[in-house]
Order: sequence, then structure tokens, then C-alpha cells
Amino acid sequence: MLAPGARIGILGGGQLGRMLATAAAELGFDVHIFTPEQDSPAGRVAAACTIAPYEDESSLERFAAGVDVVTFEFENVPVSALQVCARHTQVRPGARSLELTQDRLIEKQFVESLGLLAAPFRPVSTAAELDVAIAALGLPAILKTRRMGYDGKGQAKITAAADAAVALAAMQSAPAVLEGFVAFSCEVSVILARGTDGAIEPFTVTQNTHRDGILRESLAPAPIPAMVAAQAVEEATAIAAALDHVGVLAVEFFVEAEGGLRVNEIAPRVHNSGHWTQDAGGVSQFTQHIRAVVGWPLARPESPPSPVQMINIIGDDATYWRNFAVQPAVRLHLYGKREVRDGRKMGHATIMDSSTDTN
Amino acid sequence: MLAPGARIGILGGGQLGRMLATAAAELGFDVHIFTPEQDSPAGRVAAACTIAPYEDESSLERFAAGVDVVTFEFENVPVSALQVCARHTQVRPGARSLELTQDRLIEKQFVESLGLLAAPFRPVSTAAELDVAIAALGLPAILKTRRMGYDGKGQAKITAAADAAVALAAMQSAPAVLEGFVAFSCEVSVILARGTDGAIEPFTVTQNTHRDGILRESLAPAPIPAMVAAQAVEEATAIAAALDHVGVLAVEFFVEAEGGLRVNEIAPRVHNSGHWTQDAGGVSQFTQHIRAVVGWPLARPESPPSPVQMINIIGDDATYWRNFAVQPAVRLHLYGKREVRDGRKMGHATIMDSSTDTN
Repeated sequence: MLAPGARIGILGGGQLGRMLATAAAELGFDVHIFTPEQDSPAGRVAAACTIAPYEDESSLERFAAGVDVVTFEFENVPVSALQVCARHTQVRPGARSLELTQDRLIEKQFVESLGLLAAPFRPVSTAAELDVAIAALGLPAILKTRRMGYDGKGQAKITAAADAAVALAAMQSAPAVLEGFVAFSCEVSVILARGTDGAIEPFTVTQNTHRDGILRESLAPAPIPAMVAAQAVEEATAIAAALDHVGVLAVEFFVEAEGGLRVNEIAPRVHNSGHWTQDAGGVSQFTQHIRAVVGWPLARPESPPSPVQMINIIGDDATYWRNFAVQPAVRLHLYGKREVRDGRKMGHATIMDSSTDTN
Repeated sequence: MLAPGARIGILGGGQLGRMLATAAAELGFDVHIFTPEQDSPAGRVAAACTIAPYEDESSLERFAAGVDVVTFEFENVPVSALQVCARHTQVRPGARSLELTQDRLIEKQFVESLGLLAAPFRPVSTAAELDVAIAALGLPAILKTRRMGYDGKGQAKITAAADAAVALAAMQSAPAVLEGFVAFSCEVSVILARGTDGAIEPFTVTQNTHRDGILRESLAPAPIPAMVAAQAVEEATAIAAALDHVGVLAVEFFVEAEGGLRVNEIAPRVHNSGHWTQDAGGVSQFTQHIRAVVGWPLARPESPPSPVQMINIIGDDATYWRNFAVQPAVRLHLYGKREVRDGRKMGHATIMDSSTDTN
């Protein structure tokens, strides 16, 4: 157990790093952010901030040598950066969680190796492979880069064979995966934390709505049968244990009409669909992640007393912050991003009792 | 209404400033701390920090000119510092709230001017005045400096006439007030926020236990009759309105055996007895204060679903942080203070359902 006053290094300066940093401060820790970004959201709430590329080994070494544990906000941090840090201090979660989830193909193979179902998939690097994959999986299907995708980036939907060439070109020669269409009735996620002692604490299962590949809304608890929710928690637990993960982990699932589950994505970190836990989870996913990475026992999450809805504030939505600020039962969270950009996550709002007032 | 991205200046770098700073960041604001203290708890979670004495006018001017509103964490900031800031930007709460509550004598006269009861009191500057005051109020009584007292500092109990000279010497020639003994059955506080529009939102009334002049524990809701609680809220509301206060304000009361109320102290700021609102108030007093000072409408607080207990972690208690960290239903808050000192507030813990496990 790291004692209060210890220093936590966080790779990444975005909103997840920001919310991790304030959660860490609340427990008495000092935070050092490492980010390539000037004037980052997380840097502004941290005791120290190093601005350097993730490839800058000597900056990483100094950063890691000055903290008691390193964690990351985002799975697109290069594994090499974690490896440099690991020469100087504890890194949690470990490189294995990052490596397995940075590559969609490896992630899906890992899911299947645990006896769980992913969406049907085929690796694709060439036009010929894409033709074979389409023949096997049918259309519509989605072509996704194996690496560095998030918020719908690096994805192209293929609805007719004629779209295939354009989709492949959109990958810019990066290795890709074709995912077959899953006729799902809804999408849910399990956010859980796993401690250094192996204990796992899941939050209530959350239902998610995406548009253009970006999460728009989450609803907790997800209005799905209890047995399906329990199965999702069980599968996420198996994944976290198999990764020997330490910290928060999110697993997104497709729920099929008959209640079957398909693992869609694993995120080895705090997750947008868990933001409602700040306002209605008893303990937030950010606090829980910090507790895990400093080796403290996990807190006990609580189910929301009534359904809560989390709405993402994306791009231009941010100009309507007043609409959220004036509502007494809405908890507003803004990330301090200077510039509004299309599709950029600017903040989120939690509607405390969505059964009485959903919009 | 200040827009997100605006800059909030906070006078004071202690734990209240720290918790205000993270609450402000959560709403998308940048925080600039002004404090005489090196490596302060609040400075480590703020976008900017000026380290200078409150008497340093030119530093104050630069600070105030660079922010959109100035507030304070602590009523012992000199009024002159607020006046300097007010030449450059909005100051909320205003100097009137600070002036009236910095001086115990003026505060008590103000309370009585509203038709409310304070503890019986007499101003005392000399041994002769003290004799007269003791004759009028009886013993035991408490001699308190008029200014700059907090956490039991600047106070001396007089139980026998022979103690009077020692008590007066402890005031170090500072003007003082003798407070008569109130036979109270308990102490409670009302924490409320008042917006720029004059709207007032009180939190649930809290019962407080002090030892050696320092708050040790708070319990919300206070186990007192509903009519007494309503009366306390009404009196605190009258005080906030009369001050034209903007921001959070705390009023501490003695509750007499028959349910009568005596105003003990007014704090024109977030208050230790409101810390439980971070974990069970729907909105925290820190968020509510920020909303008020940036001119947003207030959020609607919620009553805790079950009684919550807040325990202060004082001095050496901090070495037992593990006892709090390992309990899953305890929410731990530590202030990042480097040095443990006797009577120093190091953190607090909220016990979420004190009806099942109070200790």
C-alpha cells in the first residue's frame, strides 16, 4: 500500500487523466502528468506536468524515477513508454493489459481463447484478404484498423461490395480487421476494478448508445434481464483475471435479441461509460482506479438508488453548457478543453433520476 | 454566468482551497491560488499558484487582474486583500461577509440586530472589563480573541475567578469577548449556499461534536426535532440574506435542552461540518460554492439516504490512514499536508451508513 503523499505518474493529459488526477489528490497523493500536449486538461490539476512525446526516453526516465507508480489514461500510449517506466518504478496496469488491447486482432483472439464470443472477424491487410473476409462474414460489416482506433476513428462501414475498395483505402495501408455484423438489441458495458490482491469490484452494468462511433449516452443500471447482466459481469471478471489486470477495466458487449453476449471491445482503463459513477456509484471509477494502482483495497461500489443517465457533451454541444448548468438535478462535468472540435469530447452531464426527467 | 474556461482566483492554499479547486476544475474552470504558503495543498491541484503574503499589493493586483472572479477559503484573509482584488475583478462573497465575521464582537452584535440569539457576551480588553463581564455572565465562561481565532485557537476557558488573569494573558493584549456558558444539549450547523440571484439552498442540518475547540465528528441529518432543524435553517437563511452573501455560508448553533437556538459562529465560507456533502449531499458544498461565485444557479442538494458520519483526521490520526483506507464503506479524503502537527486537520473520512457501523 502506497502511503498518502506518494507520487502517482499518469501517462496522458486528457479528461480521463484529469479526473484520475483529482481523484488521486482527494486521497492525498501528488500527481505528475506526462503528456505530449501543451496546456492539457490534466496538467492543469496536477502537482507536476512533463510535456514531451511518449517516444522521448530520457524524459520518460526522469518522470518514472520521480514517482512511486505509473498508470495511464488511455490505451494508445506506446507499450515502449510503459517498458521504459517499468525500469524505474511500478507500472499498473502492466504492459500485458496494454499490449493485448491495443491490437483489435490480438484482443479478439484473446477473448476467444477464454471461451467467450466476440463479433465474428477476419484479419485484413490486402484487397484479396478483404474479398475473402467479406465472403466469409457477409455484409454489412465494419473494417477497423487493428491499432490506434478510438471514438469511431479508423473505421469504415461496408454495406455493399462496391464500398470495399474505399474502406480499405481509408485504412491507409494499416493492418485491419473486418468485423461481421451482429444483430444486437443493445450495447452494454461492465466497468470493474481489480486490486493488487486480485479482488474484483464491478459497477452496475451500463447500457450505452453510440452514434458515429462515439458514445452518446449511458444508462445505469442497464434495463436488461438480471441473468444477462450477471453473465456480462462474469465474462468481464474472467477477462480482468486472465490479464492479471490491476486497475479499472471496461468491457463493452453487444447483447443479442435472445440475450447472448458478444465482447465488442476491452479498454484497460477508466471508461466513458463509467462516468456516472462519479455521481451515483458510491465510489467513482477514478477513485477506484487510484486505489487499485496504489495497492489499496478497493471500495465497495453502490447501485444507483434510481436510474441515472450520463450524456456526453460533444463538439458544439459545449456551447450549450448553460442548458446543463441551470438544471438543479444535473451534475455537469467539463474538461477544460480550450478548443471545440467536431466529435471532441468536451464534458458530460449526469442526470440523477432519469426516471422522472430523461431530457 | 461565467462560462467554462473562466479563471477563478482563490485566496488561501489549505484544504478548503484544495477542495474548492478540484470542484472548480470539474465544472471546467481554471483555478489560480494565492497563498503565502510554499507547496500548499491547494497549489498542487491548481492551474496557477502565486506564493506571496496577503499584504503584497502588487502580487494581489496581478493575481486579481488575471482572473474573472476572486473568492476565499478562509475568513482570516485580511479584508484589505479583498479590497485590492475588488479594484480589478468581482469578489464573492463580498467584503461585508468577511468584515462582519472576522470580529466576534461585531458578529454577535449583527446576530442580535437580526433578532436572533447569540450566547451571552461582553467585550473585554482589560482586567477591569473582564471582572465586570464575569460578574455579569457568571462562570464558567470562555474568553476569545475578537479576531483571527479558529479551531480553538485564541480561546481560554475560565472556570474560577482565579483563572481570569491567565486567560487574559493568553489573549496577548488582543481585544477579546467573554462568552457566557450556554447549557446546550448539542451543537448543530447549517451549511447553505446563496446565489447571485438571492436563491438559497440549505443542506441537511448537521450535528457536530467538538473536542479542544476542534470539530471532531459531524452527523447528518442531525438527530434533532424537525421543528428545531427548520428553525435553524430559517435563522441561517436570514443571516445569509442580511449579509447579501454570495457563496456557501455556515452557521453554528447551540441547541438548548428545550430546543432553543443560540448562534455560536458564522463562517462566510465552506465549512468542515459540510464535508459529508462530498459523499452524500447530491452536490458538494465545494461545487455549490463555485456555482454561486461564478453566477450559476445553485444545484439542488439531496438528503442523505441514510445517516452519514464525518470524522476528522487530526494530527497523529493521519498515521492511521490504513484503518480508513481498508474499510469499503468509508470515503477517505486526505489533504496532502506534508507535516503532521498536533491539532492540524490532515483529512476526513465519511462513513456512508453510520446506522449500521458507527465505529
